[in-house]
Amino acid sequence: MNRHPFHFEVLARDGSARAGMLHTPHGDIPTPVFAPVGTAATVKGVPPRDLKELGATLVLANTYHLFLRPGADVIAGLGGLHTFMGWEGPILTDSGGYQIFSLKEIRQIDDDGVTFKSHLDGSLHRFTPETVIALEEKLSADVIMTLDECAPPLDRAYNEEALRRTHAWAERCLRAKTRSDQALFGIVQGGVFDDLREQSARFLTALDFPGYAIGGLAVGETKAQMHHTLDVVAPMLPEHKPRYLMGVGTLEDFFESVARGIDVFDCVLPTRLARHGAAFTREGRLNLRNSALAEDRRPIEEGCACYACQNFTRAYIRHLMQANEILGLYLASIHNLHFLLETMRRIRQSIFDGAFAQLWKGGSRTVSSGQ
Amino acid sequence: MNRHPFHFEVLARDGSARAGMLHTPHGDIPTPVFAPVGTAATVKGVPPRDLKELGATLVLANTYHLFLRPGADVIAGLGGLHTFMGWEGPILTDSGGYQIFSLKEIRQIDDDGVTFKSHLDGSLHRFTPETVIALEEKLSADVIMTLDECAPPLDRAYNEEALRRTHAWAERCLRAKTRSDQALFGIVQGGVFDDLREQSARFLTALDFPGYAIGGLAVGETKAQMHHTLDVVAPMLPEHKPRYLMGVGTLEDFFESVARGIDVFDCVLPTRLARHGAAFTREGRLNLRNSALAEDRRPIEEGCACYACQNFTRAYIRHLMQANEILGLYLASIHNLHFLLETMRRIRQSIFDGAFAQLWKGGSRTVSSGQ
Repeated sequence: MNRHPFHFEVLARDGSARAGMLHTPHGDIPTPVFAPVGTAATVKGVPPRDLKELGATLVLANTYHLFLRPGADVIAGLGGLHTFMGWEGPILTDSGGYQIFSLKEIRQIDDDGVTFKSHLDGSLHRFTPETVIALEEKLSADVIMTLDECAPPLDRAYNEEALRRTHAWAERCLRAKTRSDQALFGIVQGGVFDDLREQSARFLTALDFPGYAIGGLAVGETKAQMHHTLDVVAPMLPEHKPRYLMGVGTLEDFFESVARGIDVFDCVLPTRLARHGAAFTREGRLNLRNSALAEDRRPIEEGCACYACQNFTRAYIRHLMQANEILGLYLASIHNLHFLLETMRRIRQSIFDGAFAQLWKGGSRTVSSGQ
Repeated sequence: MNRHPFHFEVLARDGSARAGMLHTPHGDIPTPVFAPVGTAATVKGVPPRDLKELGATLVLANTYHLFLRPGADVIAGLGGLHTFMGWEGPILTDSGGYQIFSLKEIRQIDDDGVTFKSHLDGSLHRFTPETVIALEEKLSADVIMTLDECAPPLDRAYNEEALRRTHAWAERCLRAKTRSDQALFGIVQGGVFDDLREQSARFLTALDFPGYAIGGLAVGETKAQMHHTLDVVAPMLPEHKPRYLMGVGTLEDFFESVARGIDVFDCVLPTRLARHGAAFTREGRLNLRNSALAEDRRPIEEGCACYACQNFTRAYIRHLMQANEILGLYLASIHNLHFLLETMRRIRQSIFDGAFAQLWKGGSRTVSSGQ
């Protein structure tokens, strides 16, 4: 009965969609799963007890941000990320690669690693596969990611060069890893180029990672290109290992991706939109600052079971937004997180019920209806 | 058994200190009580369910702010303040007098009322005793306040003139009141001048308000002058009616004032200090941004039972403050509110135990120790 602390079971299938369970040292994660993002070791504005109440089972944190502030040694000294941020459930850390490349603070990329400038104070730092794994081991998340190079998805030459490094770095990350209680996921890259994606999937699956991410999507390509890339990559990944589509978090993307066999998602959108005064609803996004809401007695969404919708009107939340009261951001964040988490729970149930296509066809209107 | 929805009982005395129970249509308030301030119909950053968990039994809201935004008619249309802000417990609204005078946006004061400029958009508005009572009746708090004129405490001539108006306005507020489910409190003014305070206490007690506030303190006079004024006024107020010291919320002030027979307090300090990164502790204020806290594993305060102290280190909260994460403001607010609410609960118990002086002498160090 003494199983490896990390393993994945597929429990049901409906077409290519899978419902499973990802076992980690800090708890089990029913999949498909949406992971709220806690960039700086906090899901912005949401206390951990609220995350638990919302049914979050996996939280993402950013290695790049935590490396800069407060520092991985500080977090390690305080007992690791779980203790530090008061979240006892599973955590995933990215490698920082995406931030370095997207923040455009790079000073030098070479085969050994990347030198970059802090966005906080301009200081220079260097990441290599080995230093990133050391950082992620100090942070102590349950799932950790390899250092990869994120190339613009449509640039063939750049992608060829980046892929060569990403693959070499993946091997070095595997070798550098020392802890047995963390699962290191490889990241398939290759932009929108089928042959590069295939090459990447083949190379990485040969390294036998316990899970695979698909990176470099939702960063500039079309939806059709994204779906096509999933069509190419997902079937090449091992059936019995989790598949993680990085940075994707809209309702439509959930359905399109689960349909193609994706198990894990993360996105900053629910909390970022909340800070901008927008809420997810079955009817689309609701602008919570809209004057039309000034005397609207309805909750953000009729029938929604979240704390915000069970207790407050659109009129009140609109008032909070207009008065720049942070309770407004809190209530909108709670609602948006609930919306995506609840959607994913319904998707998962529909896979067990053999009713995924039906739920999808019912459209977003039916996804979060009822209690 | 069909009692008036509002009444006050003194249940125990220890010297001049009183422990009592203030019955209101929305629940009973054990006194002495500290009321968190929800200026814009929200205690900044703290959801109502957290206020309940913290043991808050009375919340204050500001008529001036709510009049300007979202408007009393909007709140009335949505069912009144309790429903609007999702707080089912007792609420007290001030009259807006303090804000008009302290924000220095006055355009004209005359015997009929005051014309002032909105701090939001510069628009001109007028409050009279009658319009303020109408506003407070629309807002629907349990305890409402008369319109008073707040004069600089040391200016004799100004205080004489203001007191004459304050008294006339108190009578007009009483006449204007139409609802029987709200308790209207009179406000004793008179600056630091004993004869004016005595005159005010005599005039207002003759009008038989169900409760009395002492206004115009903690606004520029010395602590000794404040205590002396309480010594003069409190004994002149009816024994069987609640006494409310407006805008006071430090530990030392609580003890000094309860010792003189005060029952009700309110103050923005716990949430305002939290937003500035400071926490109350038995040892004094703790600067949560201090670099000395960067690796401090202790809670804000050892032995504190609040959610922040039970789950998070100083190091984590300091990190949140440095990263401008709003969870930091939330945790500090929760702690500061707990600190004052718990202090008041201990003060109340000490009065039942005949141990108020002992608790006070033990000093702030013992006030919030233990579970």
